[in-house]
Amino acid sequence: MTFKVPDSVSEQIAQHLADRIIRGQLKERERIQEIKVVNALNVSRGSVREALLILERRHMVDILPRRGAQVCELTPHHVQSLYALMAELYILLSDAVADRWRCPEELQPFVDVQQRLMQGMQRVDIDAFVEASVDAVSASFAFANNPYLQSVVEDLQPAVARTYHLALDGQPDEMQRMMNAFGHLLQAVIDRNPPRIREVVAGYCQHNCLMVLAALAKR
Amino acid sequence: MTFKVPDSVSEQIAQHLADRIIRGQLKERERIQEIKVVNALNVSRGSVREALLILERRHMVDILPRRGAQVCELTPHHVQSLYALMAELYILLSDAVADRWRCPEELQPFVDVQQRLMQGMQRVDIDAFVEASVDAVSASFAFANNPYLQSVVEDLQPAVARTYHLALDGQPDEMQRMMNAFGHLLQAVIDRNPPRIREVVAGYCQHNCLMVLAALAKR
Repeated sequence: MTFKVPDSVSEQIAQHLADRIIRGQLKERERIQEIKVVNALNVSRGSVREALLILERRHMVDILPRRGAQVCELTPHHVQSLYALMAELYILLSDAVADRWRCPEELQPFVDVQQRLMQGMQRVDIDAFVEASVDAVSASFAFANNPYLQSVVEDLQPAVARTYHLALDGQPDEMQRMMNAFGHLLQAVIDRNPPRIREVVAGYCQHNCLMVLAALAKR
Repeated sequence: MTFKVPDSVSEQIAQHLADRIIRGQLKERERIQEIKVVNALNVSRGSVREALLILERRHMVDILPRRGAQVCELTPHHVQSLYALMAELYILLSDAVADRWRCPEELQPFVDVQQRLMQGMQRVDIDAFVEASVDAVSASFAFANNPYLQSVVEDLQPAVARTYHLALDGQPDEMQRMMNAFGHLLQAVIDRNPPRIREVVAGYCQHNCLMVLAALAKR
């Protein structure tokens, strides 16, 4: 039996706010006033300030000296920059899994994710679908076994989830294509084929990026 | 004339503590007690807590639930993980400079860094040498023009500086070799030669990693 230490209050506030940003309930450049969060959630000002620092690390808010926090922008340049970086990080992670899996059971977490992606798609449940995508990435951390890479990717995941929501909210059919890409990637990992991994991940990120840019243009 | 907004108190505390960790004055796994920092620097408890969150983002401290902050470990596994990731990020940055420089004047910041590395070496001034190395990386951000890549690398720089100090404090002759590697990298960037960039950066990171591991083993 494992005991889980409960998240700190500031972590809980951060997750609450991140969730609202990811779903688009808080808009880009919207100011987050400490005092409003204090009153809405009945927490201390210190906890809110700490939560905002956690959100800054997770690329969700910018903290401007003497002007407080605001939701990070999501311009076309941001989206392109994010996907350019994520493509490289996903390739590193996928290469690690390809290099290090030994028996097929070790790949079971990815097969489970595939099931959940399928279910999310069938129910048109974008939240569940995005959550499963995030878990696919997390399942690769054990193979990469690199605490710095893990922390960097973990901190970028909320920004990626935000772009997924933006793209899928208007275009749920895209889930089918994302599932297919995940299937191709898993096959390339099973085949231990790094050039194919690069090709699949780069193509996936490029297409997703275009999808998000199209969603941005429609706003 | 540009006005620079002064750093927040928490940012100043974070820089002060980071500096002590980078120079090895605070040892790995040493506990950082909020109240001691409050008393030593005559600042508020809230500012110290914020500073510790900033340091967590910069891979300098771990914040353990209900047990406070301690200086991050630097095991051989950490060092290998850090350099494996940095190699990839440095290659991305160097490729961006190689791809995007247009006139030689744009490369002047790197030539200036080379001068400062040389002076640091001649004076056996490890602080100045490490600072110039960090500035070399920062000078590449304008070429990469990727806010996520920049923030990821900025947050990793203190951990890299910490390993440089560890390695160079016992082995100042290594500065010559690091300078040579920087010269080779700059030439590969001027030649716009990505395979050579990968070769130089990978070799440099591999050698630095071994140097740091040797320093760790001697502790």
